[in-house]
Amino acid sequence: MCQLMGMNCNVPTDICFSFRGFHQRGGNTADHADGFGVAFFEGAGCRMFVDSRPAVDSPVAALIATYPIRSQNVIAHIRKATRGEVALVNTHPFMRELWGRYWIFAHNGTLENFGPQSGGQYRPVGTTDSEQAFCQLLDSLRLRYPDGQPPLTELYGSIAAWSAKIAKHGKFNYILSNGDYLFAYCTDNLSYVLRHAPFTTAHLKDQDIEVDFSQVTTPNDRIAIVATEPLTDNERWVPFSSGQLVVFQDGAPLFL
Amino acid sequence: MCQLMGMNCNVPTDICFSFRGFHQRGGNTADHADGFGVAFFEGAGCRMFVDSRPAVDSPVAALIATYPIRSQNVIAHIRKATRGEVALVNTHPFMRELWGRYWIFAHNGTLENFGPQSGGQYRPVGTTDSEQAFCQLLDSLRLRYPDGQPPLTELYGSIAAWSAKIAKHGKFNYILSNGDYLFAYCTDNLSYVLRHAPFTTAHLKDQDIEVDFSQVTTPNDRIAIVATEPLTDNERWVPFSSGQLVVFQDGAPLFL
Repeated sequence: MCQLMGMNCNVPTDICFSFRGFHQRGGNTADHADGFGVAFFEGAGCRMFVDSRPAVDSPVAALIATYPIRSQNVIAHIRKATRGEVALVNTHPFMRELWGRYWIFAHNGTLENFGPQSGGQYRPVGTTDSEQAFCQLLDSLRLRYPDGQPPLTELYGSIAAWSAKIAKHGKFNYILSNGDYLFAYCTDNLSYVLRHAPFTTAHLKDQDIEVDFSQVTTPNDRIAIVATEPLTDNERWVPFSSGQLVVFQDGAPLFL
Repeated sequence: MCQLMGMNCNVPTDICFSFRGFHQRGGNTADHADGFGVAFFEGAGCRMFVDSRPAVDSPVAALIATYPIRSQNVIAHIRKATRGEVALVNTHPFMRELWGRYWIFAHNGTLENFGPQSGGQYRPVGTTDSEQAFCQLLDSLRLRYPDGQPPLTELYGSIAAWSAKIAKHGKFNYILSNGDYLFAYCTDNLSYVLRHAPFTTAHLKDQDIEVDFSQVTTPNDRIAIVATEPLTDNERWVPFSSGQLVVFQDGAPLFL
């Protein structure tokens, strides 16, 4: 299995603090040592850092934990291989372009009896069930909305219906973003926390580090963090229910 | 304008030496200070490092110059913006998936009267003529070969014909790779050098650094380096002729 982390904010924010805790799980506080990846949206642009080395001893992970890249939408993944060999080509997140925007996807879980769908325009490059599921999602969205992105409520409905269908094949927790919205779907293991004023001090679970957010934020900042396991031990993390799809925008969940 | 660098080898090789010289041009020995990007193929997998900061003072560039990522196909680009604002979304190289493989493209030049082509499946995310040209190439290849990649001679012919067509719009030097082959096309400014046994010492033009390749290679290694301007001052760089498309495989140009 793997671990997921996502961040959605109303102002560009760095993930140095959260990533410091999260990347300890890539071989240290947890054995997810088969590579990792982090995608940062900057507007519609996206940069992705991936490495097939364990996050705890990767120079790339060290860079991310210390270089403050400010982003409104981030998706991170540390991998413990279940399907597909340990190789860069199988390292999440995955990226494709749809409707003139980059889409990023990372998955936690394993899908059973999940065969490739032929004839699609998006084809997996690696051998994971995750990338295959992502390609099927984009194919189904493009087929349904060939001209461009539909209104959010429609998009949400289509993604929710597709997610429920794929989730019949097994464990399917994922995070997906196009740089505007961050979608998170849960079958069994995903939580989120909302940070907003008045900001307080948060303490990492995986490392004895704390940060006083009131010192590094403004009163209008709103930040949502999604993770497989809560990253801090003194904040109110909300567990997703099974089958729930949440879409975040500007640091808050939307209720559609 | 911008500067390009590409590497194609028969064994995974790092680009630390060449990149040390090349990235000096991103704000130091040349004024290409509007961002940079490097894509490394590892098998079919690809990782890309991009930054909209000048290469000379980017922590990401510092990582690439010191962390030996071994790859058989690398494409690097430092940008001096002519079309499209300075932003991550306009930073080369660009990546798309075609036929279940990642394709990477970086361009040097400016295209005039080059309008968007509607109805294509690949759409630019940013606002550069370069990304638009890349999307048109992939659309034309997919349209012509919907089922998968054709034999290399056919692929070469199609890419050459498309390149000549686009080059009518202006300066169009580019490097393109799918992880197996590295294509380089020149309208006016591109050179390559071939390194093979007996290996000797090379000296960078942009920094007083030299490396004795005989100490870091085996007798069977073959490496081709493509660059806008030669990177070393004591090797035999071969200038491309105008309108020439060269395809490299395993560190050598193929003559089709």
